[in-house]
Amino acid sequence: MGKLEGKAVVAQGGGPTAVINQSLVGVALEARKHSQITHVYGARHGVSGILAEDFVDLSQATSHNLEMVAATPSSGLGSTRDKPNAEYCEKIFEVLRAHDVRYFYYIGGNDSADTCHIVNDNATKAGYELRVIHIPKTIDNDLLVTDHCPGYGSAAKFVVSAFAGVNLDNYALPGVYVGVVMGRHAGFLTAASVFARKYPDDGPHLIYVPEQVFDQDKFLAEVDRVYKQHGRCVIAVSEGIMDKSGQPVMTSLQSSVERDSHGNVQLSGTGALGDALGDLVKKKLKIKRVRSDTFGYLQRSFLSVVSTADANEAREVGEKAVQYSVWHNVDGSVAIRRTGDYSVDYMLTPLDTVAKATKHMPEEFLQGDHDVSIAFKNYARPLIGNFPHYERLAAPGVKKLLR
Amino acid sequence: MGKLEGKAVVAQGGGPTAVINQSLVGVALEARKHSQITHVYGARHGVSGILAEDFVDLSQATSHNLEMVAATPSSGLGSTRDKPNAEYCEKIFEVLRAHDVRYFYYIGGNDSADTCHIVNDNATKAGYELRVIHIPKTIDNDLLVTDHCPGYGSAAKFVVSAFAGVNLDNYALPGVYVGVVMGRHAGFLTAASVFARKYPDDGPHLIYVPEQVFDQDKFLAEVDRVYKQHGRCVIAVSEGIMDKSGQPVMTSLQSSVERDSHGNVQLSGTGALGDALGDLVKKKLKIKRVRSDTFGYLQRSFLSVVSTADANEAREVGEKAVQYSVWHNVDGSVAIRRTGDYSVDYMLTPLDTVAKATKHMPEEFLQGDHDVSIAFKNYARPLIGNFPHYERLAAPGVKKLLR
Repeated sequence: MGKLEGKAVVAQGGGPTAVINQSLVGVALEARKHSQITHVYGARHGVSGILAEDFVDLSQATSHNLEMVAATPSSGLGSTRDKPNAEYCEKIFEVLRAHDVRYFYYIGGNDSADTCHIVNDNATKAGYELRVIHIPKTIDNDLLVTDHCPGYGSAAKFVVSAFAGVNLDNYALPGVYVGVVMGRHAGFLTAASVFARKYPDDGPHLIYVPEQVFDQDKFLAEVDRVYKQHGRCVIAVSEGIMDKSGQPVMTSLQSSVERDSHGNVQLSGTGALGDALGDLVKKKLKIKRVRSDTFGYLQRSFLSVVSTADANEAREVGEKAVQYSVWHNVDGSVAIRRTGDYSVDYMLTPLDTVAKATKHMPEEFLQGDHDVSIAFKNYARPLIGNFPHYERLAAPGVKKLLR
Repeated sequence: MGKLEGKAVVAQGGGPTAVINQSLVGVALEARKHSQITHVYGARHGVSGILAEDFVDLSQATSHNLEMVAATPSSGLGSTRDKPNAEYCEKIFEVLRAHDVRYFYYIGGNDSADTCHIVNDNATKAGYELRVIHIPKTIDNDLLVTDHCPGYGSAAKFVVSAFAGVNLDNYALPGVYVGVVMGRHAGFLTAASVFARKYPDDGPHLIYVPEQVFDQDKFLAEVDRVYKQHGRCVIAVSEGIMDKSGQPVMTSLQSSVERDSHGNVQLSGTGALGDALGDLVKKKLKIKRVRSDTFGYLQRSFLSVVSTADANEAREVGEKAVQYSVWHNVDGSVAIRRTGDYSVDYMLTPLDTVAKATKHMPEEFLQGDHDVSIAFKNYARPLIGNFPHYERLAAPGVKKLLR
């Protein structure tokens, strides 16, 4: 079998992460090393850029620029929510054929893996030889097969820094605080808030993830208990928490619901869930100082909060994608396998094992219906890495003289 | 005149900042050097801790612990929103007399300066010799006399990092984005978002501060103009923006309004303003992808985002407070004077020049009704310091072959 020679196209789909450009640059720099890849193009705004022939020639970018882009959060090529159907894919091939593209690398979540799967199927049916590699990324950490997803560790580090800060804030000015974290189906990102607990009475005191049924009455009882014990209560909540009928708590609060082309309901970009939970606590428990924040887009694109392990792995999955396709002439999705504590290697898994479906937090990562376990902490800690140390005042109390 | 000998009390009031503990530790370490200060006590939760005789003995804290606390965001001693009246102050004196306290340092904003002023007046009337020094802090940067306030630079750095990130996010997935920033009366913090603009078409494209009347129709026209020009629009809005009748835009949207003991309306801890502005854009301009985030408590307590100049100055105002009171035996509020570009020195200003009133952005810092000026950038840049560099891809476009 001869070498497959032609151009490569790399694109980015779905929600950005802090390290998604590490993968892009991993592809670009690795592809530039191989003579059978004649040019490496970047498609602007994912598959929609292929359709529009909206390419930039990454072979002609400087290595300094590429390294700077690698350290820049959010998809440098732009992103898309388009989900190609058969007709869409026909148009993709027309463009790929015209440009002699033989290598397609798509960086994204399970929707992007699905896109890869459809494109690959269509390529096979059309008799067009095309290597298709899906490169994982998602702050939700909800892809199947892979141990974890590039983008998760950095977003988790943001969540830890945020909750460590608001816990200190809530310690200074006590009350009830609700922090709403991204996570449609999986609670991995919200669960990371557990690392904000340093001292035994630190928050978040309650952690609610979509994997557990959210019961309003139980929730209020827990908030009441914690507030009576500590005089304050910090709560971490996934945007995707669901009631016992399987309905997102969020949808029951919104009059009109927005869906994207993958059928996903809009959960982010609104403070409604946090406000509603805050109001509930205020009204039912008669607690005056109740505040809520929705971390929103900050957690996936904030400048400067990056996990080192996450950045390194995001780079490596990009490089491995090119290596698999060039050295082994195969299609698939790059997956991370944990080999030690902490070490990893990489493998390629068939596209259909990653497409569409999502992973949830396993039972062993949960504890009761409002906390996460030590097993989760052991899993997540190396992905997040170090975060800044901080201390409370340790000074002896002074004897009261008057009262 | 002999040296005034006795104990010192330091306390923290109002909203926490990322560097408020630098001032606390500045006071504690400096006070420990002077023999006439027999002990330095910390009052827990501001003046309310004095009333409750809730003191810790900072003379008995380790220097390592104090340095770790200095690097920890949010008020290490706890805070309060209490505003002492004459009766409250009588009780304060009773406690101060009983503990032989002769030096009182209060770290806070204009409400805390007001507290200092009342306590000082009462001390004078009661014939009790007491040095009272107010130490400035506020992320709002709205204190009179001082060039700027410790706490502002670090919060501004957070705002810049957040908007730089969401601008990149919005560049990847275009739409309209509204980011709501803290700032009740003054727009300094929201104005800092201007530093997120690196490339000429970067957001925030529109910046709304409380110093300018917010007109819904003009707002919609501007969003429409920017969206038509760039295909996207990033907007920075102060929580305290007001309509032409002087009413906060926020209050007209909330059914019940919460006030603290200083009469301040609750603006933070709810996503209502961002959601309302987002809905307005969605409905009136028929733009589908509209998102809003309310930065909330993250901007004043987030772990690890600190301006170096801000941290250093916060330490120094604490040290200077002790030095003024010990070497010069005077009362007042420590103020920062800008002497060069960039250098500062410190001065003491009478308490009544800082108490109660707030500073607004001067006319020269504003540009039109939805932007800030170069004069503001020149003022604010050294306070924020460096933030991470980032780049867009710089690669040539590829010629279309089909369309």
